[in-house]
Amino acid sequence: MRILPKLSSRHTDHRNYPPGIAYMDGQYLPIHEAKLSVLDYGFLHSDATYDVAHVWGGAFFKLGDHLDRFSRGMDALHMSIPYTKAQIIEILHNCVALSKLKNAYVEFICTRGTSPNFSRDPRDAENRFIAFAIPFGSVASKEQLECGLHLAITDVVRIPPSSVDPTVKNYHWLDMVKGLYAAYERGADTATLIDLNGNVSEGPGFNIFSITNGVVSTPDVSVLLGITRQTIFDICEELEVRCHAQDITVDKLKTADEVFITSTAGGVMPVTRIDERPIASGNIGPLSKRIMHAYWQLHNEGKHRDPVEY
Amino acid sequence: MRILPKLSSRHTDHRNYPPGIAYMDGQYLPIHEAKLSVLDYGFLHSDATYDVAHVWGGAFFKLGDHLDRFSRGMDALHMSIPYTKAQIIEILHNCVALSKLKNAYVEFICTRGTSPNFSRDPRDAENRFIAFAIPFGSVASKEQLECGLHLAITDVVRIPPSSVDPTVKNYHWLDMVKGLYAAYERGADTATLIDLNGNVSEGPGFNIFSITNGVVSTPDVSVLLGITRQTIFDICEELEVRCHAQDITVDKLKTADEVFITSTAGGVMPVTRIDERPIASGNIGPLSKRIMHAYWQLHNEGKHRDPVEY
Repeated sequence: MRILPKLSSRHTDHRNYPPGIAYMDGQYLPIHEAKLSVLDYGFLHSDATYDVAHVWGGAFFKLGDHLDRFSRGMDALHMSIPYTKAQIIEILHNCVALSKLKNAYVEFICTRGTSPNFSRDPRDAENRFIAFAIPFGSVASKEQLECGLHLAITDVVRIPPSSVDPTVKNYHWLDMVKGLYAAYERGADTATLIDLNGNVSEGPGFNIFSITNGVVSTPDVSVLLGITRQTIFDICEELEVRCHAQDITVDKLKTADEVFITSTAGGVMPVTRIDERPIASGNIGPLSKRIMHAYWQLHNEGKHRDPVEY
Repeated sequence: MRILPKLSSRHTDHRNYPPGIAYMDGQYLPIHEAKLSVLDYGFLHSDATYDVAHVWGGAFFKLGDHLDRFSRGMDALHMSIPYTKAQIIEILHNCVALSKLKNAYVEFICTRGTSPNFSRDPRDAENRFIAFAIPFGSVASKEQLECGLHLAITDVVRIPPSSVDPTVKNYHWLDMVKGLYAAYERGADTATLIDLNGNVSEGPGFNIFSITNGVVSTPDVSVLLGITRQTIFDICEELEVRCHAQDITVDKLKTADEVFITSTAGGVMPVTRIDERPIASGNIGPLSKRIMHAYWQLHNEGKHRDPVEY
């Protein structure tokens, strides 16, 4: 009989993680202690839905909208958790308050979970809720926000709605990752994917907008119905600018007057170069600037603010 | 200032898990201690590849084939781990030996991992290798193996190869889960998905085969190139039965003489009912029985066996 290696009683993780606080299974934990069983189907089958809200200047922004979408996603996936909406709000506020972060990225997740016998029937699993607050992050770096992003249009097809409902926020990102590597190879900062018809879809974590002759457009199918995307519709109405959800061809995007992307992680972020060509003059366009300004202005208004008591 | 909830120093997990042993970060652990950071992009972006081998009667079956596919998957996803093939084999053997399991389900995973600052650039992440051995499980229960499975043909489209390469084994399963719930609603045991052209694709964790007039067929695109699927090709050659990879229409599957599914988790499993109709007589067909028998016979031959030293 050979000598087998020693069995450890607890996992030791030597990696470094960002600061932050997580909640799971009734406990508040430093983020580096927030660990998911490798048998959770949220990992092994990416069978999960989630949402990300942000805290800016000590207050949540549009938290209710994120919670409503999260709740619809759980229903669509036949998942449930033993927390009311009010309890989830309390948990999220506690994560942020314990983290002391005034600008935070707050993610909340429902996974299919696990069953004691590793059953393959998703109805046998006990669903799991996880939440965490870490420092606010952005799709675009500070320099990219100032000068504009370089976007590559890739031929990777965004997972179609006939396979996975894009309005249920999910972690199916291998198409996005493939797009990112294709973009990096071409010297770009990030990527857009296309839909099954070859029109512009969305990129890794963001919706895409184009502006032509003063009219703002964004794809209406095969995309996440982003909360920030909706905020752009609202801002455009306020600014009396026409804004439509409609198909955007690759050519239309390439010849647009202005292009920007939107995400909870970063807000409104300008694109000034697509593939080998600058957008118009290659500078951030005037209407994009107005919309970016209006977006951050909204954070100061009471309507969408939900202050955290630290 | 309000009183904030207490911060725990370590996560306490009260759930029950199957018996088993895992390896991660240089440690062998009881499976209930094998936990992944919630910030790992293998979870948050399902940015991971994996493989599953099985141990039957104390020996791995076709382990080399699974390792080769795993290695190709990591290359395709621009991932790397600091282990040679020989080291991975040693780790997998150790997991099984420590688990004492004679029949085991052995999964090995490479995730994108994490970066200390939660960078969104996948090139910044340190990839992570995880392996575990748990009791052998099957897509079909004992009763289903004896009487045949009831399969539902759903209209859920398997994520197409233009989005995610199905030959790189991945955790993008929300389409499969949707198919399963649709099958359960119709009283079936499991589901098949279709491809973009409406032909038969694959089901949750298995390839599908139909037999018509003594000829065996299985879909050739939009499916995982299963190791067990390949074993069927080899068995058919041995039995001098014609076997083709080709499009299978929904009608062809419904009117087949025999139908079976294949998976490392269960081997060759008969289907005797599709939607509302039995397949032929509703009993397991003679050629299916011969192939099932040949599959388990192969496990006794030295060629594919890699015995575990317990």
